Amino acid sequence: MGTDATQDLGAWLDGSIMAKRGLMRGKVGKTHELTEEKQGVFHYTIGPYSEPVMTVKPGDRIVVWTKDAFEGRIKSEKDKPSDILEVPFLNPQCGPIMIEGAEKGDAVAVYIESMLPRGENPRGTCCLIKEFGGLVGTTYTAMLNDPLPEIVKKIDLDTEKVYWSDRVTLPYKPHIGTLSCSPQIDSINSLTPDQHGGNMDMPDICPGHVCFLPVKVPGARLFVGDCHACQGEGEICGVAVEYPAVITLRVDLIKGWNIDWPRIETPELIMTVGSARPLEDAMRIAYRELVFWMMKEYGFDKYDAYMLLSQVGKAKLGNVVDPKYTIGAAISKRHLA
Amino acid sequence: MGTDATQDLGAWLDGSIMAKRGLMRGKVGKTHELTEEKQGVFHYTIGPYSEPVMTVKPGDRIVVWTKDAFEGRIKSEKDKPSDILEVPFLNPQCGPIMIEGAEKGDAVAVYIESMLPRGENPRGTCCLIKEFGGLVGTTYTAMLNDPLPEIVKKIDLDTEKVYWSDRVTLPYKPHIGTLSCSPQIDSINSLTPDQHGGNMDMPDICPGHVCFLPVKVPGARLFVGDCHACQGEGEICGVAVEYPAVITLRVDLIKGWNIDWPRIETPELIMTVGSARPLEDAMRIAYRELVFWMMKEYGFDKYDAYMLLSQVGKAKLGNVVDPKYTIGAAISKRHLA
Amino acid sequence: MGTDATQDLGAWLDGSIMAKRGLMRGKVGKTHELTEEKQGVFHYTIGPYSEPVMTVKPGDRIVVWTKDAFEGRIKSEKDKPSDILEVPFLNPQCGPIMIEGAEKGDAVAVYIESMLPRGENPRGTCCLIKEFGGLVGTTYTAMLNDPLPEIVKKIDLDTEKVYWSDRVTLPYKPHIGTLSCSPQIDSINSLTPDQHGGNMDMPDICPGHVCFLPVKVPGARLFVGDCHACQGEGEICGVAVEYPAVITLRVDLIKGWNIDWPRIETPELIMTVGSARPLEDAMRIAYRELVFWMMKEYGFDKYDAYMLLSQVGKAKLGNVVDPKYTIGAAISKRHLA
Amino acid sequence: MGTDATQDLGAWLDGSIMAKRGLMRGKVGKTHELTEEKQGVFHYTIGPYSEPVMTVKPGDRIVVWTKDAFEGRIKSEKDKPSDILEVPFLNPQCGPIMIEGAEKGDAVAVYIESMLPRGENPRGTCCLIKEFGGLVGTTYTAMLNDPLPEIVKKIDLDTEKVYWSDRVTLPYKPHIGTLSCSPQIDSINSLTPDQHGGNMDMPDICPGHVCFLPVKVPGARLFVGDCHACQGEGEICGVAVEYPAVITLRVDLIKGWNIDWPRIETPELIMTVGSARPLEDAMRIAYRELVFWMMKEYGFDKYDAYMLLSQVGKAKLGNVVDPKYTIGAAISKRHLA
Repeated sequence: MGTDATQDLGAWLDGSIMAKRGLMRGKVGKTHELTEEKQGVFHYTIGPYSEPVMTVKPGDRIVVWTKDAFEGRIKSEKDKPSDILEVPFLNPQCGPIMIEGAEKGDAVAVYIESMLPRGENPRGTCCLIKEFGGLVGTTYTAMLNDPLPEIVKKIDLDTEKVYWSDRVTLPYKPHIGTLSCSPQIDSINSLTPDQHGGNMDMPDICPGHVCFLPVKVPGARLFVGDCHACQGEGEICGVAVEYPAVITLRVDLIKGWNIDWPRIETPELIMTVGSARPLEDAMRIAYRELVFWMMKEYGFDKYDAYMLLSQVGKAKLGNVVDPKYTIGAAISKRHLA
Repeated sequence: MGTDATQDLGAWLDGSIMAKRGLMRGKVGKTHELTEEKQGVFHYTIGPYSEPVMTVKPGDRIVVWTKDAFEGRIKSEKDKPSDILEVPFLNPQCGPIMIEGAEKGDAVAVYIESMLPRGENPRGTCCLIKEFGGLVGTTYTAMLNDPLPEIVKKIDLDTEKVYWSDRVTLPYKPHIGTLSCSPQIDSINSLTPDQHGGNMDMPDICPGHVCFLPVKVPGARLFVGDCHACQGEGEICGVAVEYPAVITLRVDLIKGWNIDWPRIETPELIMTVGSARPLEDAMRIAYRELVFWMMKEYGFDKYDAYMLLSQVGKAKLGNVVDPKYTIGAAISKRHLA
Repeated sequence: MGTDATQDLGAWLDGSIMAKRGLMRGKVGKTHELTEEKQGVFHYTIGPYSEPVMTVKPGDRIVVWTKDAFEGRIKSEKDKPSDILEVPFLNPQCGPIMIEGAEKGDAVAVYIESMLPRGENPRGTCCLIKEFGGLVGTTYTAMLNDPLPEIVKKIDLDTEKVYWSDRVTLPYKPHIGTLSCSPQIDSINSLTPDQHGGNMDMPDICPGHVCFLPVKVPGARLFVGDCHACQGEGEICGVAVEYPAVITLRVDLIKGWNIDWPRIETPELIMTVGSARPLEDAMRIAYRELVFWMMKEYGFDKYDAYMLLSQVGKAKLGNVVDPKYTIGAAISKRHLA
Repeated sequence: MGTDATQDLGAWLDGSIMAKRGLMRGKVGKTHELTEEKQGVFHYTIGPYSEPVMTVKPGDRIVVWTKDAFEGRIKSEKDKPSDILEVPFLNPQCGPIMIEGAEKGDAVAVYIESMLPRGENPRGTCCLIKEFGGLVGTTYTAMLNDPLPEIVKKIDLDTEKVYWSDRVTLPYKPHIGTLSCSPQIDSINSLTPDQHGGNMDMPDICPGHVCFLPVKVPGARLFVGDCHACQGEGEICGVAVEYPAVITLRVDLIKGWNIDWPRIETPELIMTVGSARPLEDAMRIAYRELVFWMMKEYGFDKYDAYMLLSQVGKAKLGNVVDPKYTIGAAISKRHLA
């Protein structure tokens, strides 16, 4: 199943939080295009200090041409990542896109309409990067063991399939790895997820779903990049099928919705997202935010919510490889009725 | 959907690892009944020092009458757990059941045929226990905050539904919380999961699935208990819908299958289970074991397996509340073909 | 023992790394004064985007007038921190001070000559802040427990003693809580320690010792603040005896000393500093950096260094309360001869 | 400085908790000798299921002949640990020694009079063991990296010095790595520290100091082993200078002192010991126990104790390599007056 079936994916949207609470009540505004040329310089840090590339209104649609996490520099399976990549210039971000009227204490809603591969013969890239990944010593989990070999894999893909190997073909299930609004005064490298969103690598931030992000600065300053043609839970080797994509987003603004961490809405569930180390802290953040959400907006008693989640809570690993790990905690909408 | 539909749940078994590699090749032997009377004393520690309650042969079926995790002592919503429960006498286990011919280096396969509530008007118990749970300070994550109030919830249930509250009814989705073979020389309290299995609280150890456990002592010494009528991922408040159940298991023995951690097989996937703290270590164990499994038995290169799991790996939270946390890492069987 | 005995504290400096490898070979240059007036706006984020307040040369001495971590806003024991403090405007930093000639790949050496309390009747402040501290649920270690009460303690002090209570008087043992050079492109809030230094809260960054910091941007951009009149290992309640101080620093530049994390030199030992979560990762970073240092500059084989540290390594907790925890790993100079 | 200077080391004992609260009020009873012959079989698991080797009275002195952690099997630098060592048969323990009158809820006090090397030309052993240590992937922190090479180092030593290498000579500073009373129903392998004591690898459990252990079973069942001729904080490579020793202990019994975790008393300070993962949980346990101790026995208010420890608390790493990590938290006795 591809991602261009916009009409189907969005059928549930009329009943969504985005439509019910967003300023535009689900209406679609103007379409903007953020091409590579318009973007100019890509960003490796997410904060309030960079020049906006465009301003949109709530309800507007934005078509963004993203580069892959390596900015396209890994071109062949013979390339050696350590020769090519330079920290901290990894994971180029498009933006910042200003959203008219956004102020600290609001939430931006981002509905992902579609994600399409760029180019004639689209290919993704996966690789093993030295001292990066979930089952190796890293910069932070510092080890004396020798690193794994550097391996690059270039993978053909289209809107149906990811042609992983002769043996294995995977479904094309794209998602956005890095989505953020600016922190208030910090500027955070695009590899790190936190309260602002960032490099969550959460598979549920995908076509047909809505992501809500807290606004901390005027205009929100939306950044986006790091598209994955598919990714497992945890992104265990540190790298998904990284690819350049054309993504279509629809944004809205929920005034006065003062959320502390990113949230996701799908046709079936609501999810809160926590990013921290150790991994149990990411989990704690996500589940506590979900308790608070259920209390505040669905009329649950605090301990009822906690005990109910013990029976029906869903937990989804985003990444277990970035400087902070990401978990989503979710509950089915049918238990919230 | 209830759990007595044995014939359906087991339709896939003929093609399972259990049937292909178990001594009995899927054939069913004699049925044994382990009643409360036969069990006599229940166990709170899992090891090689207790008296066996019965001996079965590979292929045999065992019907076990389990008590709930509180040994039935929490009878009313007015009860106060701290008055009633005494550490370490929590989570009573049936067994040990000796499996003829089991030796160190083998694996025991446990297929769960069914789980049925005991008694006329079956009820489950959920509660908040002082300094226990995923979002509170605990014995190990020691805090100075006051504990939460102690709350007890008694919940009616049948083989279709768990009647959680006036507002919320949940599906009956039972699983076994604690399943183990004995460690070699240690005896581990029944609250703690580890390499021997133990209190994994993993929802996938449920009717229709097979769990494989490493054998460390002659006869394997199988223990089982801690049935849950339903449980969310993480068992976040520390307690599921705990209930006394009649469970029907079928066991087999895979000679010389020297696994280091528990494994699970379902119709759709294979899963490895890790238990450790911090939570990322549980995840690392599970994913590494899965890499090793793919290498050894499905012909994958080590780094191929690692990179493929980065695209399609599934991660499932068992518990995030016990002395060790539990995660399962899985891959769909269709990617292993 | 007070901190004004500059001549004694620095007696060892001639043989220090700072004197042997710094551009100025231990010579002292001009003295600069960074008063509150000169500072103007204080900073709450450490990065490359703020306006420099002065430029100094290697060898120069800088006298800095710091504010306490609450910018002096907690004036009385009746104050309630949650009414007064606003995240992220905590822990005001002086600077950035530009160091002539500093370039990426160099290290800045900061020798702390003295730390003196400011004002006529100097007082420090300790308090309990909601959801902050080592034995409570926090923003990241998210809990449902009620927070501790907010308590403020104002403490008289002088250059000999900290008059904690009627019962307990403590020695005045000041150190600098937050010391940094700018990251390359990120701007990191002043509460968080990392590779750039930051809020390490490491008691060994004190008068008589040298701290080395990696340079990532031209001019290094030195920030300093957060003085403590005394602090235990771990800063367990999250707050030391916070006080405004006049500190005298001497800086030098070690060209081409490309260190990855902060380092400390004292008369007796060399120390590497790691900041991360979980705490074992901070420890791993610190000990690995120390292995690397012993290999590169003291002629040890990698495994010799590792095994020797297993016998004589010293570990010092800095903070266990900030967004990243800090540990120093050290070895006595006598084992390096 | 050697360890046979019993008279000096113990000069402070008259004022110790052991002398003030122990049944024998500091008086010394009979001396027992636990030779290898008397011990017979050594133990690799600490619990209530093994045969006592002797019974002593409070106040008695016990001279114990311990084996090294490898049971003497690593004899030469050419030995390969993975050929010789077999999990779980590591870290052999002497005992259990029954202490007359000990009951659940009491504490055993163990004063270490002396530790002397055994044999004519005493040697210790250090080595690198595959997938064990603080800076490598391990069984729990599972990695795909290749393990480090296995290296064995045999080290001459006497009661003054440890002759580490041509370059480095270390002081002989012995301590007991593993000291325990039995858990109530569990039997815990001798590599793991926990509430019962166990493999804490805490350098402060050394001649001249007292260690207090909680009693959970009649007779306490004291186990001891794993002597180190010296060890750094954290025991970073996983192995200290392991050696067979003759240790002289004096035991007493504090009736009704119901402690939850081990405690240490030295001439200068009192210390609580926590063992857990992640490392911050070990720290939390230790500091919380110290707060509780200060409240209960030194008249501190809870928050006073917490805030005071933030200024003067000492933290000491025991091990960061065993299945649970160990930290001690301490306060100087002069602040308790």
